[in-house]
Amino acid sequence: MEPKIPYKIYLEESEIPQAWYNVRADMKNKPAPLLNPGTLQPMTIDELKGVFCEELCRQELDNDTAYFPIPEEILNFYKMYRPAPLVRAYFLEKALGTPAKIYYKFEGNNTSGSHKLNSAIAQAYYAKKQGLKGVTTETGAGQWGTALSMACSYFGLDCQVFMVKCSYEQKPFRREVMRTYGANVTPSPSTKTEVGKKILAEYPDTTGSLGCAISEAVEAAVTQPGYRYVLGSVLNQVLLHQSIIGLEAKAALDKYGIKPDIIIGCAGGGSNLGGLISPFMGEKLRGEADYRIIAVEPASCPSFTRGKYAYDFCDTGEICPLAKMYTLGSQFMPSASHAGGLRYHGMSSILSQLYYDGLMEARSVEQTAVFEAAELFARVEGTLPAPESSHAIRAAIDEALKCKETGEEKTILFGLTGTGYFDLKAYEQFNDKTMTDVIPTDEQIAASLAKLPKVE
Amino acid sequence: MEPKIPYKIYLEESEIPQAWYNVRADMKNKPAPLLNPGTLQPMTIDELKGVFCEELCRQELDNDTAYFPIPEEILNFYKMYRPAPLVRAYFLEKALGTPAKIYYKFEGNNTSGSHKLNSAIAQAYYAKKQGLKGVTTETGAGQWGTALSMACSYFGLDCQVFMVKCSYEQKPFRREVMRTYGANVTPSPSTKTEVGKKILAEYPDTTGSLGCAISEAVEAAVTQPGYRYVLGSVLNQVLLHQSIIGLEAKAALDKYGIKPDIIIGCAGGGSNLGGLISPFMGEKLRGEADYRIIAVEPASCPSFTRGKYAYDFCDTGEICPLAKMYTLGSQFMPSASHAGGLRYHGMSSILSQLYYDGLMEARSVEQTAVFEAAELFARVEGTLPAPESSHAIRAAIDEALKCKETGEEKTILFGLTGTGYFDLKAYEQFNDKTMTDVIPTDEQIAASLAKLPKVE
Repeated sequence: MEPKIPYKIYLEESEIPQAWYNVRADMKNKPAPLLNPGTLQPMTIDELKGVFCEELCRQELDNDTAYFPIPEEILNFYKMYRPAPLVRAYFLEKALGTPAKIYYKFEGNNTSGSHKLNSAIAQAYYAKKQGLKGVTTETGAGQWGTALSMACSYFGLDCQVFMVKCSYEQKPFRREVMRTYGANVTPSPSTKTEVGKKILAEYPDTTGSLGCAISEAVEAAVTQPGYRYVLGSVLNQVLLHQSIIGLEAKAALDKYGIKPDIIIGCAGGGSNLGGLISPFMGEKLRGEADYRIIAVEPASCPSFTRGKYAYDFCDTGEICPLAKMYTLGSQFMPSASHAGGLRYHGMSSILSQLYYDGLMEARSVEQTAVFEAAELFARVEGTLPAPESSHAIRAAIDEALKCKETGEEKTILFGLTGTGYFDLKAYEQFNDKTMTDVIPTDEQIAASLAKLPKVE
Repeated sequence: MEPKIPYKIYLEESEIPQAWYNVRADMKNKPAPLLNPGTLQPMTIDELKGVFCEELCRQELDNDTAYFPIPEEILNFYKMYRPAPLVRAYFLEKALGTPAKIYYKFEGNNTSGSHKLNSAIAQAYYAKKQGLKGVTTETGAGQWGTALSMACSYFGLDCQVFMVKCSYEQKPFRREVMRTYGANVTPSPSTKTEVGKKILAEYPDTTGSLGCAISEAVEAAVTQPGYRYVLGSVLNQVLLHQSIIGLEAKAALDKYGIKPDIIIGCAGGGSNLGGLISPFMGEKLRGEADYRIIAVEPASCPSFTRGKYAYDFCDTGEICPLAKMYTLGSQFMPSASHAGGLRYHGMSSILSQLYYDGLMEARSVEQTAVFEAAELFARVEGTLPAPESSHAIRAAIDEALKCKETGEEKTILFGLTGTGYFDLKAYEQFNDKTMTDVIPTDEQIAASLAKLPKVE
């Protein structure tokens, strides 16, 4: 007889993974290196360490070490909100009438409301250890900025957040959480940086963009002694830290001898998806197991499904290194009517290589369908999901409904990256039925891709 | 050697208490009965059942049954978010440098963000079982309305929430959570009820009050066939359901052989405090153990510490039964500058009797001191607390600091009833240093108490 699976599988505190897993170590085809945009040569630690903390540069460039021990100070902080629960979605299964078994790894059980805290605390730790005064970053929807402000508060680091001006004004509550944790939050573009002043002179009425905020944050980092810049997604180091999600999920499933057939995650820059799938992908790469792995992206910003695998700038301001990735072009602007995150033009180099090599699938979903899934999930599972996470919910529901048709009892695991408590404006649009789907035309994407840098 | 206590003590799913505990069964002096305001005779089930569900009326009036088995359907729902964690506040202890051992029972791990869901699901269940179409209620800060909308969505009941108009406008996000769960949310006063129309005719610019919203909700319940009214605090039935908080907390402490010296809870109407302390108070009443129990109320609405123990109306509209309780008078209006909940003029009859009998203490705290405690707690324990819960945090910190002076290693348990994610306006005031303390004068309280109904 099958053992009774509880609603929530919690690991013991002593079962928190003690090392992050670096999936690159098991990749035959390593992700392409970051390139210096001037020389088109691979970036070295010496080039990177003016912008990033040294230890994080090492993690960024290390394609060979499989496990990085998690420092004790970080483990102590993890214990504040980890292990995160793995939930058996009994209520959702029942509502769908599916024979599929659905599990989700819930990362929203902390005040930042998302998985971002897993990497924020690691990056703050290495900044502190290096003796820095503080860090700078940008934030759009605000999850990353919130997570970083919590992490910096813990280690007594100054935290300077450039928040896209329209978010700063439309999401005052996220801003106040950051301020409560002592962060210095500046609406971007600002007069604090040269690049901000330049943009304001040219476009005095601009409400800002993530690309502009990145440029301001990087400038602020390199012009203040004792500061470095930190980033919440895309980078290899971030996926490394986020592997804690997948390691815990796998440990919880292993306790009950459960093997997922399908693993689903939403994908913006790739931090959550990369973290969730990493140990499973490792098994797949080593030929020990097989899984269907599905990346779910918004139809309004479809880098995997409609982008090109090419070298591109990581930022709109074109001051960051070049990364090889599935991209819509660094000048691509997703529709303003798109709710929530996942608006990034590119994708983690690691995930891009894995996708290119046929080791995972990708699909795009439209936002009204995403919010329909979010509403159902909230009502039956009791947690109001973040719009980002709801992309994964949509795909999980679709797969479970296929099982209902075929009668297959597949096991589905998806990542519930966070809660939607600061995204109620989007829910309001959905409740008011004023939400629309906006999908870029082929011409729009082609025009943006035509501006890709020329790299052999 | 003392066993190592983990940061979070989770019970197993199978350890969720299977029955609620009714502290009245162990009280020598029973709480005074509700009185019919017309006859001044104790309310009977027949009189109550036009407004409340029948089974809930029975629970309300039952002073003798010690344990009420929790129906399986409610237990199933509880499994969605329970057992709730008991957290050892290691980080707070370290920040304070206190020898005290601090624990808190965290009830904010669900989308309603508070303990209110524990009773909402019970009340919705009995309404469904009675074959009702729906329920009506009022909400101020919105925690209760959110919890009830989740519970009604689960059982497919119509949920009509009268939300104080200024909250409806100033807390649009709470409103949208309720709408996402399918609730019908009406700003009060409204033209949907006779009492609402009357108030609007008299005060066309009013922004509403909890008392007015209660009157509208009760009218809506008794004038629509198949509807009943439900309430989130004060009543005996609510404290019964909330006993799950204390039962779980005690079970978790018992696992490690821990006996608290001091138990602290915030007190508005008393639902959280009554629930948290009930099994401990039971032991105290039966002479099996002794605990210091402290109710913490806001200095702006100090019913225990400056009110009178007397019969009073439960609502400003004076249409509800009379309850004997510590009260500031049903016409008392706490200062508009008071942030968050705990604004109720009265107090649970059970807690009032226990306080009157010297079985617990009470103290009031000022809101700037409360938010100082909230900020510290958020920064070191990682959870942004609700303003209500932060009253308990304040008192717990004060007790822990006393231990620091005396060197005593006391064990302190407090209730962290919820999260402050929808209370960022108040945090903004605190961050901007525009928050003030407003304490009613003796004259204000005396004037309000002069209007108490005359009951022998």
